[in-house]
Amino acid sequence: MNDFIFHNPDKVYFGRNQLEHLSEELLQFGKKALLVYGGGSIKKNGLYDSITSIVKNSGIELFELSGVEPNPRHSTVNKGAAICKKENIDVVIAAGGGSTIDCAKGIAAAAYTENGDVWSLVSGGVWVTKVLPVIAILTNAATGSEMDAWAVISNMDTNEKIGLGGNALIPKVAFENPEYSYTLPSYQTACGAFDIFNHILDNYYLAGEATFDLLLEMQEAVMRTVVKWTPVAIKEPENYEARANLMWASSMALNTVLDGGTVHGCACHAMEHELSAYYDITHGHGLAIVTPRWLTYILDETTAPAIYRLGIKVFGVEEGLNEVDGAKKTIGALSDFCFDTLGLLPTLTDLNIDETHFKSMAEHACAGGSITGLRELLPSDIEKIYKMCL
Amino acid sequence: MNDFIFHNPDKVYFGRNQLEHLSEELLQFGKKALLVYGGGSIKKNGLYDSITSIVKNSGIELFELSGVEPNPRHSTVNKGAAICKKENIDVVIAAGGGSTIDCAKGIAAAAYTENGDVWSLVSGGVWVTKVLPVIAILTNAATGSEMDAWAVISNMDTNEKIGLGGNALIPKVAFENPEYSYTLPSYQTACGAFDIFNHILDNYYLAGEATFDLLLEMQEAVMRTVVKWTPVAIKEPENYEARANLMWASSMALNTVLDGGTVHGCACHAMEHELSAYYDITHGHGLAIVTPRWLTYILDETTAPAIYRLGIKVFGVEEGLNEVDGAKKTIGALSDFCFDTLGLLPTLTDLNIDETHFKSMAEHACAGGSITGLRELLPSDIEKIYKMCL
Repeated sequence: MNDFIFHNPDKVYFGRNQLEHLSEELLQFGKKALLVYGGGSIKKNGLYDSITSIVKNSGIELFELSGVEPNPRHSTVNKGAAICKKENIDVVIAAGGGSTIDCAKGIAAAAYTENGDVWSLVSGGVWVTKVLPVIAILTNAATGSEMDAWAVISNMDTNEKIGLGGNALIPKVAFENPEYSYTLPSYQTACGAFDIFNHILDNYYLAGEATFDLLLEMQEAVMRTVVKWTPVAIKEPENYEARANLMWASSMALNTVLDGGTVHGCACHAMEHELSAYYDITHGHGLAIVTPRWLTYILDETTAPAIYRLGIKVFGVEEGLNEVDGAKKTIGALSDFCFDTLGLLPTLTDLNIDETHFKSMAEHACAGGSITGLRELLPSDIEKIYKMCL
Repeated sequence: MNDFIFHNPDKVYFGRNQLEHLSEELLQFGKKALLVYGGGSIKKNGLYDSITSIVKNSGIELFELSGVEPNPRHSTVNKGAAICKKENIDVVIAAGGGSTIDCAKGIAAAAYTENGDVWSLVSGGVWVTKVLPVIAILTNAATGSEMDAWAVISNMDTNEKIGLGGNALIPKVAFENPEYSYTLPSYQTACGAFDIFNHILDNYYLAGEATFDLLLEMQEAVMRTVVKWTPVAIKEPENYEARANLMWASSMALNTVLDGGTVHGCACHAMEHELSAYYDITHGHGLAIVTPRWLTYILDETTAPAIYRLGIKVFGVEEGLNEVDGAKKTIGALSDFCFDTLGLLPTLTDLNIDETHFKSMAEHACAGGSITGLRELLPSDIEKIYKMCL
C-alpha cells in the first residue's frame, strides 16, 4: 500500500432541517453572495425561496447566475467570474447537482485570475490554490462535487471536458438534504447512482494500484448500498432512506475517505468524458454503457480475481467458481444492474452515437499517453472499447 | 435516521515516509513547541530522535513533558499547561498512543484557562472552543484520539475518568506511520484493537438509535478488518499491512465518518471508564471483559436481531437461525475473539478486581441517570453486569 494524505475540511450539514445554518456560514465569509443554479428546478421545489429568504434575512446582498448547463460550459463559468470581479463577491453559493457545483467552483477559481477566464486554468492544468469560498447546496446524489477537490468544465468550441483540480476547490460548507432530490426524474437518479458507483470502482481493486483490506471493505460497503437503494429511489422517489443512502454515498465516493493511497484508475471516466464532450450525453449514462465493455475488454486470468471479487462482494455472485467464469458472471450482473434495474439504454447507438469521432476521442482520452489501471490502455484499445459499445 | 453534521478538518499524513512534513506543519503555528510523550518507548524506536532533529532543523525551540501515564492524570496535564503558559508555547506535539494525545489535548485546552487547571474544564463539562494547536504523532492503533474531538483525563484523587470534548480538540495534523507500532507488545496490540472495535460497536445498530444502511455497512467493514488483522499483528508485530489496517481503522472508528446521525450508545465505554478509574487497568482489556456480558444481559427478542446481524456480518455466524440463538452464537464468537484470539484474561477476578466498589461505580457510570442505547441501563443493571464479569 502507498502513503497518503487525508484532508477534507468540508463541513457537511446532512438532513432535513439544516438549511437554517446557511446564515451563520455565509456571514463568516462576508456580505455579498453569488447564487449559482441551473434550469430552475430549485424554483419548483421551493429551495430557491428558502435560500433567498435566509440570505436576505441575514443582511447579505445576493447576485444570481442561472442557467448552468448539465455539462457546465466554460463560457457560463466566465459569466459568473465576471460578476464576482465586478461586484466584489465574498462567497459563491451553488444550489443544484454536480454541474452547478462544478460551475460555482470554476467561478470561484476564475474570480482570482486576471483575465477571468476559467479555461486558462483548465487548459493549463493549474492546481488551484486560491478561490472564493464555495457553499454547496446539493440536490442530486451523483458527482461527489459537494465534498471533492474537482470541477469538470466543458468547452464545446473545442469538444473538451476537463477536470480542474485543487484542494482549495473543496467546498467550505455543504448542505445535503435528501428531500431536495425527491423531484429528480428516475433517469437522473439512475445516471447519478451509476456515477457514484463508478467513482468507487475507478478507485477499487480494479485500479491496479496497491490497496488494502480496510479500503476494499469500505468501498464494497458503499457500492452495495448504491446497488440496494437506487431501485428503491427510482420506484419511490420520495423514499427518504433511499435518497439519504444515495446522497451520503455520493459524498463518500469522492471525499477521499475511500482513497487511502490508491490512485484513481479512472479508465471509464476518461473514456466517458469524451462522449459527453462530443455528444453532451448524461455522464452517468455514458459510464454505464462503457463500464461493462471495459471490464469485458480487460478480462483475462490476471484481471479476473479483481473483477470476480467485485461480483462476490457487491452483486452476490456465487463463490468458488473458476475466476474467469466468476468475472464473466460479475460483468453480467453489472450489466443487468445498469440496463435492467436502472433501465438505461445499453448502447451508444441508442444515443445516436456512431464511430465517426472514436479515433480522435480515443486519442484525447489518453492525453497523448495511455490510461493506467488494472490494465494499461492505449488509444487503439480505447477505440475498440468504444466500438464494443455500439 | 437523524440529521447530522460531518466536519473533521484534521490533516492526516499516513504511511512510512511522511514525518518530513512535520517541519512545514509546525512552522505554520509558530516557533515554540512542547513535545509530550510517555514512558520513553519513542526513545527506543528512534521516533524521539527523528522528531527532535526535524524540530531543531526547523529553527523551532522545543520544550518537553515526558512520563504521561497510560490513563493520563489531570496533574500531568496541568504540568504541561504550566509550561505552555510560562513559555508561550505555540503548538503541542504529542508522540505516542491515545493517552499521550489525550494529555496533549488537555494541555492545549488548559493553557487557555486562567488557573491552568484542566480539571476545572473536565468536571465542569465545558465544551472546549479555544485550544493551542495539537499535532499528533501516533504510535498505537487504539483510541482514535488522533482524529477525534475528545480527551479522556483521569483524576486518581477522586477515582474519576472523564472525557473532555470540543471540536477544537481535533488535532490540526496527525502523522500515522504503522511502523511506529511495530514495537508494541502483543497485549497492547490486543487491547488497542478491542478499543477500536468497541468504538464502532458503541455506535452500531446496537446503539439503539436511528441508523442507515450505508453506515451499518461501513461500520461492519471496519469491524471485519479489525477481526481479521489483529491476530496477524499479534503474531507478526512487524507486518506492515496488519499494522496499517489497524491504524487507519483506529482513526475511522472515531473520526465521525462512521457516526452519521447515530448517538454513541457507549454502554461499554461508560462501564469500563469506572474500572480504569478505580483500578487503573488497560481500557481495551476492561472493554473486552465487559462487552460480552453486556450483550448477554441485554439479550432478548427485541435486541436479538441487532446482535445477530453483528454475528453474521462481522464474525461469520451462519444465517437463518432463530434470532435469539443467532445472537447467542454471536456473543460466543465475540468472546472467542476477545479471550482466545486476542488472548485477554476473561474476568475481572483475573485482574484482581472484586465487587467492593461495584455499587458506587455503577452509580457513577450512570451519572445520576441511566445509560441509553439498545436497552436503557440503570445503576442496578450495571452492577449486575459487573458481577457477571467476576
